[in-house]
Amino acid sequence: MPDTDTPLIEKLREIVGEKGLIVDRGEMAPFLTDWRNRRTGDALSVVLPSSTEEVAAVMKLAAAEGQPVFPSGGNTGLCYGAVPETDKPGKLGIVLGLQRMNRIREIDRAANLMTVDAGVVLANIHTAAAEIGRQFPLYLGSEGSAQIGGLISTNAGGTGVVKYGPTRDLVAGLEIVLADGTVLRDLAALAKDNTGYLLRHLFIGAEGTLGIITGAALHLHPEMPNRAHAWVSVASPQSAVDLLAAFQDRAGPYIEAFELVSASQFDLVVKHCERIRIPFEGGIPAWSLMIELSSVDSSTDLNGILEALLESGLENGGILDAVVANSEQQAQDIWHVRHSVSEANKKEGVGVVHDVAVRTSDVPAFIAAADEAAAAKYPHAFTEVVCHLGDGNVHYILMFSHEFWASLPDKEAYALEVEAAIHDVGARFHGTFSAEHGVGRKLTQELARLCNPVRYGLMQQVKALFDPDNRMNPGVLLTPAGTTPPRHN
Amino acid sequence: MPDTDTPLIEKLREIVGEKGLIVDRGEMAPFLTDWRNRRTGDALSVVLPSSTEEVAAVMKLAAAEGQPVFPSGGNTGLCYGAVPETDKPGKLGIVLGLQRMNRIREIDRAANLMTVDAGVVLANIHTAAAEIGRQFPLYLGSEGSAQIGGLISTNAGGTGVVKYGPTRDLVAGLEIVLADGTVLRDLAALAKDNTGYLLRHLFIGAEGTLGIITGAALHLHPEMPNRAHAWVSVASPQSAVDLLAAFQDRAGPYIEAFELVSASQFDLVVKHCERIRIPFEGGIPAWSLMIELSSVDSSTDLNGILEALLESGLENGGILDAVVANSEQQAQDIWHVRHSVSEANKKEGVGVVHDVAVRTSDVPAFIAAADEAAAAKYPHAFTEVVCHLGDGNVHYILMFSHEFWASLPDKEAYALEVEAAIHDVGARFHGTFSAEHGVGRKLTQELARLCNPVRYGLMQQVKALFDPDNRMNPGVLLTPAGTTPPRHN
Repeated sequence: MPDTDTPLIEKLREIVGEKGLIVDRGEMAPFLTDWRNRRTGDALSVVLPSSTEEVAAVMKLAAAEGQPVFPSGGNTGLCYGAVPETDKPGKLGIVLGLQRMNRIREIDRAANLMTVDAGVVLANIHTAAAEIGRQFPLYLGSEGSAQIGGLISTNAGGTGVVKYGPTRDLVAGLEIVLADGTVLRDLAALAKDNTGYLLRHLFIGAEGTLGIITGAALHLHPEMPNRAHAWVSVASPQSAVDLLAAFQDRAGPYIEAFELVSASQFDLVVKHCERIRIPFEGGIPAWSLMIELSSVDSSTDLNGILEALLESGLENGGILDAVVANSEQQAQDIWHVRHSVSEANKKEGVGVVHDVAVRTSDVPAFIAAADEAAAAKYPHAFTEVVCHLGDGNVHYILMFSHEFWASLPDKEAYALEVEAAIHDVGARFHGTFSAEHGVGRKLTQELARLCNPVRYGLMQQVKALFDPDNRMNPGVLLTPAGTTPPRHN
Repeated sequence: MPDTDTPLIEKLREIVGEKGLIVDRGEMAPFLTDWRNRRTGDALSVVLPSSTEEVAAVMKLAAAEGQPVFPSGGNTGLCYGAVPETDKPGKLGIVLGLQRMNRIREIDRAANLMTVDAGVVLANIHTAAAEIGRQFPLYLGSEGSAQIGGLISTNAGGTGVVKYGPTRDLVAGLEIVLADGTVLRDLAALAKDNTGYLLRHLFIGAEGTLGIITGAALHLHPEMPNRAHAWVSVASPQSAVDLLAAFQDRAGPYIEAFELVSASQFDLVVKHCERIRIPFEGGIPAWSLMIELSSVDSSTDLNGILEALLESGLENGGILDAVVANSEQQAQDIWHVRHSVSEANKKEGVGVVHDVAVRTSDVPAFIAAADEAAAAKYPHAFTEVVCHLGDGNVHYILMFSHEFWASLPDKEAYALEVEAAIHDVGARFHGTFSAEHGVGRKLTQELARLCNPVRYGLMQQVKALFDPDNRMNPGVLLTPAGTTPPRHN
């Protein structure tokens, strides 16, 4: 147990006050372990500053003391990026939580912007936007606890990406405290500014390794009250891609969801979940495409657009059957099937889920190649495809029985081996092994193995520029220079 | 005249061949002077590589010889960013033109991407996109000569920004040759990729100071055949901003243009230009707002949306009068007035045009403050406002008579003084002095004077990281470390 009376703790207390300091092990526990309880670290203390100035003072102090700093948001990540694990002997480090910085600073209707503290929980941003009839279109399951600073630091994905882009595209400006405590303010959020290098994008998705995001200006969007939904049975993944191209010609700006799912996945949903309605006479399609369109104005005939595009797909054979929802209930029934995937998989067995993205045009070839690799190496697993086709993001899943999984001597090593095999397939298509989940501590070796070496080297140099002492979330994202494992490709 | 038989020239000839080398002073001339013939530099030679590999070899050679490299695109810039001026004694440097790299490498309909060489002229990209029923929505006057590499390096603006964002938002991937000749390939153009720092945005808008863009993956968009147009007389700039907010609620995704123009500007159009039709009984409005909406689908009732929004503006007094085009001819008449602005100004006198951007919500206060500053310091000028209100980009113009201008002993110094006065006003609103034109060699002192010092320092460090010998377009964008002038603010 660390000594709570060390000068460092006292200095931290002077900066953030009693309310902003946690040194009790029990109270610190939620900050030391990821939310699924898979990995636990340690730290000297948790500090919870209440202002950017306090963050800056903490960072200056940490710099002077050579202490690592581990930024902590809502702790909803999947890659252990928020687990504090020092790599410096005798320097356990400080967890920096932003939860007390939870003010919505400003809403600017004409500029379509909301400026917030980094600790604001996503759901509160949604509420504030809705109050002026706008939306902040970042949608994911953890909205009730994920904080905007963490969402920006991980460039979170979610269901809005196909229409609005990832979190990166929703950020108009950032306030950042650098490793030495300097504050970089970039909250003017101008639509146009051509005065030099745009630094903001380095910090978005940097997973806290370059600086602490303390505030953000966010782009708002209008609400989309007009909606249309369809469940389409397509002949093949290629037919789905062809249909996507046709939609992009005629309805590109309206695409809200374009999800491709294999029968193997929806079979499990039928097997394990309730209130599942399959509207096709032939049962579950071999390949399902679930489509949602949305628009800001009610005059746009989204059902008409959907029907016309599906009609031409039926004529050319790419579409085998299709159902367009003609009621809110039918729409809910369709998406209930899609949203039951996780529950079904948990009940069935242990799924090793991949987060590969390739170009949408390469999705069919990637699926075929992954099927081949999986069949050759893991014939005892069966495979499922849950694909955000509009983004080229394929959650390719190998499903193992509970019995088989229980028999494994080293489950984690086995999972990593399976993942590497599918990541290799993605790499053949210039794809990524982490489309939306990030790298964290979990995938640093995969990044070093699969990343373009020129890019990896530049990232190490950028890291060294902004964080020369490697104190910002050390161990996350990049392996320290000199310890990079040999590359396979 | 340089000795064309120096070893360096011979080595360059070996790399790019006779067709790729210009050493004749006459042939070099267009590469040494900006297109308006205001500033002329010099160089050892012009090299025109035909492949990324040749560019890499040239860059390696330049690094070995310590020679500056001046990238050259279509030479359509306004800030002398493409004029070669060495700052290294005895090292005149090499102009690197990409015009022979003019292939469209690939069009991917499903992924909605076009991959091109950096030397492709913008108009050819437009044509290639139109051939598959798509558009590349970067629209500006110089499309017949501007090359995509230069447009990306300057993050060009244009008329599509309000709907599609600046060039930055249209770039999905880049191929870059770094200062030492290393090639960074980032053309996978994935919609999602969360594997570390996104480096691309450093090079976009860097004006050739960090590396040479040799290829790009570009986002395509669907064509927008459905259009509506209006010319609105608004009570004030604030009324225009209020109307913009209302449009963002109901029609945000459809806004294609939202232009605010003062009567002082359109008075000159009437005075100097032909075929000008003013559809208002009261003559030219004190403040004109010209609006265009567009959508991908014909079912969207754009005229109905326009009329409903204008109706509520008429009711609350923000709108004094409005005309919605009910024919293609009426639409053309409206935009002909807007597009006659440059011609009118040229005939009237000498206009000092500013490229300020502030938040849209700050535009009214900026205009009022600029009017005040102009009246106090330059009462002999009259002022005009031409504002891309949707972007917050105000081309605030001080118009001087030809007689007055002719009487000035140092015209350039006077123009810079006028500009600084208006830039200062923009800075009070956290605005930028260069919304879309860039910095080049013209505004380096303004950047050093007005840029946030933390950001400026980081930019210098980023420059030093990618270009440690300061050989990439030296003198453009950043003043060399150590020569920064004292800051006024």
